[in-house]
Amino acid sequence: MKFHRIPDETVRRLPIYLRGLLLLAEQGREHVSSHELADILHIKGPQIRKDLSYFGEFGTPGVGYGTKELSDCLRDILNLNCPHKVALVGYGNLGAAILRYSGFRSYGLKITAIFENNPRKIGRIVQNIRIQDVKEISSLKRKKIELAILAIPAESAREVTERLEQAGILGILNFAPSYCIDARSKVKIITIDIGMDLARLPYYLPIKAEIAG
Amino acid sequence: MKFHRIPDETVRRLPIYLRGLLLLAEQGREHVSSHELADILHIKGPQIRKDLSYFGEFGTPGVGYGTKELSDCLRDILNLNCPHKVALVGYGNLGAAILRYSGFRSYGLKITAIFENNPRKIGRIVQNIRIQDVKEISSLKRKKIELAILAIPAESAREVTERLEQAGILGILNFAPSYCIDARSKVKIITIDIGMDLARLPYYLPIKAEIAG
Repeated sequence: MKFHRIPDETVRRLPIYLRGLLLLAEQGREHVSSHELADILHIKGPQIRKDLSYFGEFGTPGVGYGTKELSDCLRDILNLNCPHKVALVGYGNLGAAILRYSGFRSYGLKITAIFENNPRKIGRIVQNIRIQDVKEISSLKRKKIELAILAIPAESAREVTERLEQAGILGILNFAPSYCIDARSKVKIITIDIGMDLARLPYYLPIKAEIAG
Repeated sequence: MKFHRIPDETVRRLPIYLRGLLLLAEQGREHVSSHELADILHIKGPQIRKDLSYFGEFGTPGVGYGTKELSDCLRDILNLNCPHKVALVGYGNLGAAILRYSGFRSYGLKITAIFENNPRKIGRIVQNIRIQDVKEISSLKRKKIELAILAIPAESAREVTERLEQAGILGILNFAPSYCIDARSKVKIITIDIGMDLARLPYYLPIKAEIAG
């Protein structure tokens, strides 16, 4: 199997499929059609079939996808079949919300290190993790942590990203609204911009329906 | 122009294009090629051209897109040419982070109402907004607020969504990791699941390259 030509957009949807399949499996469902999966996930059936076709042949005509089989495959493809330790940089409101977020665990992702530059927060213990000085980011290499979440102001994003890269981090989930982060090609950066997510909501307000009608 | 057959995925990318164009316009750039825009935004050129083609013909061969013209058009398409008031439900760590987030303003989006169920928070004033009891959500109708952000635990999401719908809310940006929200078809719900965003990072770890190679 070749993975390297898979569009990022397909990779973005794989965890959505995985989540849906895990929910169905929890409910005792052994099979699901792409049509039903499409309904549940609000993604079109042909899109689901096309995305999965990059990785092989899945499902049986008339029966559908095996929820357990396909979720196991997706875990393999997403490299989620082993646990991953994650470093959190920034323990402000957003960082605290992220640490408390329970949704990571089902994917085997666990925050095991936290960094701050605020001296009043450094040394505090939250969820059994001692908050460290950002200057100690280099310690990540020793701990074999390869993933990080950036929950810091935009102006520090570039510097911290460089430190993370030097410490061997290979994937960053970036919440800093900063678009000038230069990463070596080895580091994958996924930026989450809640402003942009909110910005597409007005599109769906009824004024559009009037124009369309 | 017809807007109603535009894929959600295209709509999702429009604010990304808008942001890129606004940044370029700020830097004094009058034109940009789809090729350069693709480089800046990490979205493929043909994808950009296809997305824009839904809305008409943009750009001049050999010159590219006018940054000002195209960003004005995208604002129109996204219905961002007038300001929108937004209600925030939930003022925990995440809600506080969202309120402080400065990225909404450039899109004309402004949080003007906040709701909580915690009696210790109700009545507090943050950024000139008095935090109200969630029971007062119905007041949104009077205030003509049509958009809301949900930053509450999953178990309350369904009930609050119903209240928001009854109060005339038409678009919801949902951070509650809840996938059983039943909305009337009139309400557009965009769910942000940071767990799923993080879950696709391990895909890019080098083990994949070895399998692919």
